[in-house]
Amino acid sequence: MGLMELTTTSDRASIVSINLFVALLCGCIVIGHLLEDNRWMNESITALIIGLCTGVVILLLSKGRSSHLLVFSEDLFFIYLLPPIIFNAGFQVKKKQFFRNFITIMLFGAVGTLVSWAIISLGATQIFSRMDFGDFDIGDYLAIGAIFAATDSVCTLQVLHQDETPLLYSLVFGEGVVNDATSVVLFNAIQGFDMSKIDPKIALHFIGNFLYLFFTSTVLGVIAGLLCAYIIKKLYFGRHSTDREVALMMLMAYLSYMLAELLDLSGILTVFFCGIVMSHYTWHNVTESSRITTKHTFATLSFVAEIFIFLYVGMDALDIEKWRFISDSPGTSVAVSSILLGLVLLGRAAFVFPLSFLSNLAKKSTSDKISFKQQVIICWAGLIRGAVSMALAYNKFTSLGHTNLRGNAIMITSTITLVLFSTVVFGLLTKPLIRLLLPPLKHATSAASSDPNSPNSLGVPLISHSQDSDSFLSGHDIPRPSSIRMLLTTPTHTVHRLWRKFDDRFMRPVFGGRGFVPVVPGSPTEGNLS
Amino acid sequence: MGLMELTTTSDRASIVSINLFVALLCGCIVIGHLLEDNRWMNESITALIIGLCTGVVILLLSKGRSSHLLVFSEDLFFIYLLPPIIFNAGFQVKKKQFFRNFITIMLFGAVGTLVSWAIISLGATQIFSRMDFGDFDIGDYLAIGAIFAATDSVCTLQVLHQDETPLLYSLVFGEGVVNDATSVVLFNAIQGFDMSKIDPKIALHFIGNFLYLFFTSTVLGVIAGLLCAYIIKKLYFGRHSTDREVALMMLMAYLSYMLAELLDLSGILTVFFCGIVMSHYTWHNVTESSRITTKHTFATLSFVAEIFIFLYVGMDALDIEKWRFISDSPGTSVAVSSILLGLVLLGRAAFVFPLSFLSNLAKKSTSDKISFKQQVIICWAGLIRGAVSMALAYNKFTSLGHTNLRGNAIMITSTITLVLFSTVVFGLLTKPLIRLLLPPLKHATSAASSDPNSPNSLGVPLISHSQDSDSFLSGHDIPRPSSIRMLLTTPTHTVHRLWRKFDDRFMRPVFGGRGFVPVVPGSPTEGNLS
Repeated sequence: MGLMELTTTSDRASIVSINLFVALLCGCIVIGHLLEDNRWMNESITALIIGLCTGVVILLLSKGRSSHLLVFSEDLFFIYLLPPIIFNAGFQVKKKQFFRNFITIMLFGAVGTLVSWAIISLGATQIFSRMDFGDFDIGDYLAIGAIFAATDSVCTLQVLHQDETPLLYSLVFGEGVVNDATSVVLFNAIQGFDMSKIDPKIALHFIGNFLYLFFTSTVLGVIAGLLCAYIIKKLYFGRHSTDREVALMMLMAYLSYMLAELLDLSGILTVFFCGIVMSHYTWHNVTESSRITTKHTFATLSFVAEIFIFLYVGMDALDIEKWRFISDSPGTSVAVSSILLGLVLLGRAAFVFPLSFLSNLAKKSTSDKISFKQQVIICWAGLIRGAVSMALAYNKFTSLGHTNLRGNAIMITSTITLVLFSTVVFGLLTKPLIRLLLPPLKHATSAASSDPNSPNSLGVPLISHSQDSDSFLSGHDIPRPSSIRMLLTTPTHTVHRLWRKFDDRFMRPVFGGRGFVPVVPGSPTEGNLS
Repeated sequence: MGLMELTTTSDRASIVSINLFVALLCGCIVIGHLLEDNRWMNESITALIIGLCTGVVILLLSKGRSSHLLVFSEDLFFIYLLPPIIFNAGFQVKKKQFFRNFITIMLFGAVGTLVSWAIISLGATQIFSRMDFGDFDIGDYLAIGAIFAATDSVCTLQVLHQDETPLLYSLVFGEGVVNDATSVVLFNAIQGFDMSKIDPKIALHFIGNFLYLFFTSTVLGVIAGLLCAYIIKKLYFGRHSTDREVALMMLMAYLSYMLAELLDLSGILTVFFCGIVMSHYTWHNVTESSRITTKHTFATLSFVAEIFIFLYVGMDALDIEKWRFISDSPGTSVAVSSILLGLVLLGRAAFVFPLSFLSNLAKKSTSDKISFKQQVIICWAGLIRGAVSMALAYNKFTSLGHTNLRGNAIMITSTITLVLFSTVVFGLLTKPLIRLLLPPLKHATSAASSDPNSPNSLGVPLISHSQDSDSFLSGHDIPRPSSIRMLLTTPTHTVHRLWRKFDDRFMRPVFGGRGFVPVVPGSPTEGNLS
């Protein structure tokens, strides 16, 4: 008697799906909590396995007919699920660690992904063209490279701790975000260019376009964050309204992502930098309760979106339609999946160790260098393939109307196989591996609980970094001779120092930020919780 | 170069719409803030007017072609926008006031809506059948009655204050929620029954069904809330995780709504009572930061959904398609709208004053009685028609394939006219009217700021209620003779007293609640913000 009688059968089915999905999400949260201390499991694997089991149940209940109850949709993924995850990544990242390791992160995230892409594309071209299971051209092989260059480091990040291993965490985390952006931008660039005839001019154009996208997307994100900070500082000054502040921050963040998509930029990069700017300026301009609310709301949305994705991938994997085409030649599908897995491993190892070596060359202190054990963990974190690979593969091999081609069906099933295999097998091994390589002895030396004054615990003194730039900058008005020597010896610190000066002089007075929003007498005090 | 190149033109259009919409929402929030102290405007009218202006701009830009850029969809309204609004209503309501006035609220909300429905249906049958603009049967007229019996008290609630006028606020607020539920249930019941032959048996069946829906929907909401409280109390006891708690509360609340829709119950009632139970039990079982986060997140979501609806209605109102059919006979449309407005006024006045009189008869103390001025405000609050009327009218007059019938087109345009007219004209007059009837002198006597220990400031001493039941219940273990006398004289207080006893003895030990979640040594303390 509810509003159901108003709706048609297809709407009824969507209500059933929503119910099922929300109930499963609740189940995943509860089970994930119960398994928190488990040696092997983590939240993502739990969700994936629950999704798979539900898929089996649905398949049995519908007697093998139900192939379209839940279909993986890239739109849902790119428009609704990815933005909160990436925004929260930017919002909660330890900015100081991130920017300190910026060059290394860009090396791994951008250069590394390109190396990985080149190796997988080359390998696929050489091997698949001889296997004769589909009619792919050079553009298709390059797209396959981009699809399998997209990593998913969620499993590893769930095991690492930002406070215990700040360097490793920021590297794995930063690489993950930059890798997502790079592979999506690369994939779109390949789709956009005619790859049948490659000449140096097109290649140059391609590289220029790529760099342009990186730059403009970042700038758009920064502008959106600053605009939001400015609006809240100007308008809400002295008469705060928590609901408006929280709503405006959420909407502006989402707007930055959608605007980037509208302008054909990379929404992932945009929303990531928007998150960073918002946590640096906007977050300090709002009331105490808005701070707590935004911090936890963004984290919760990201958490739910992550579980949603794994559940979704799990449920979709058993969609019977996809497996029908390869049922006559299971051998080929297994072979393709194995070859891809090999290429992924090769592409990963081929850049992590050389680039770590390069990065270590540039570092002076031992504590800043990436140890071999850490290199192994970084390598491991990037082996898992996830939802981005799925979304790109669906886009490439099901969108153009020739879903029924055998080659496309094999690529789709191979992607699913690789995603499931890597997430479940590598994912299960992640906790034991990290425990083995980084024994929890480190826990004793780690910093105390997070600073309530920052969404990302920015104020925690960074262990194993003797030259902490906060104390280093204590007297920052008069340039002393010693700082000129520093300028020559430690360029990254100097960049940071110059940025801090610029920030304090010009940015914070305009856009607010920690300690730059004076409390007006008569206005709600900072401690007020309403 | 973003993910746009992956998508088709229709997806591109949806990206444009999302961008436009999110940008307008941001604009509404900022402008709403700037106009906060304005004598006439409030947030809903601002959103409606911005929506109308945008509609005009789109119409001009597309040279009158754009009739389907944004179409009002009942699904979007009932599945995504209404649940957060109603849940937040239950979550933030002052439970004590609500239950104290429960009988009066049910009188206004259920009986009053039925009276209003009967008058509008009867008037429509009598007048419209003589105007000869469409071929309506008795079921259609009853549906028209239900459509225009659905009120929208958001405008009035934005002006009233829960702390200043608790009785009036709880009456207007409670009536609004119960009215929404009643009119939707009524509408669905009419659609479900064959109204061509009315006999007493069908009428009885109808009433039975109606009461059954009210009861089962409430029970489902209570069960969902208790289940959530139980899970969080059992599982998260002593080792809290804010993200999981917040996610679980949100998902369980949404699940209760969708489950009610799946079972053909009234989701509005379910999610409202789920909100009440969650604020009474679940909310007290979570960490301090989860409390702040949920309180503000639910309020923010509700706030954004409300603005979204008004913006949406404003933009949709100018959809050119709808107005084409009535362009040959504008007179009829104006006449129909005026008649409906008259019937709405009549239907409103016909029950508010008699039912207030009835309700006052039952009350002993003067402060509990509804004064004439308050009756006028209650009457006024229910004159505005909003999104529920729109959604029901769309369902009735556009769904069954005969959108192009002249009678249906006239009913749709009349609904839009009435919604716009009542929201803008009555809405603009609301602030001045309430200022006139209730001068802000009351402000001086109002209670202090809200209690941070409750999402709904339950602990604020209620002014003008000398028999506060908290102090009244201070010694509640031994039934004293005086309380037996109380039992005979003040039945509502006794019900409340018995409920408190039952709550303290049986409910709170199982489901938690204020002061019933002991803090375990070693667990995160209450003040911990992580």
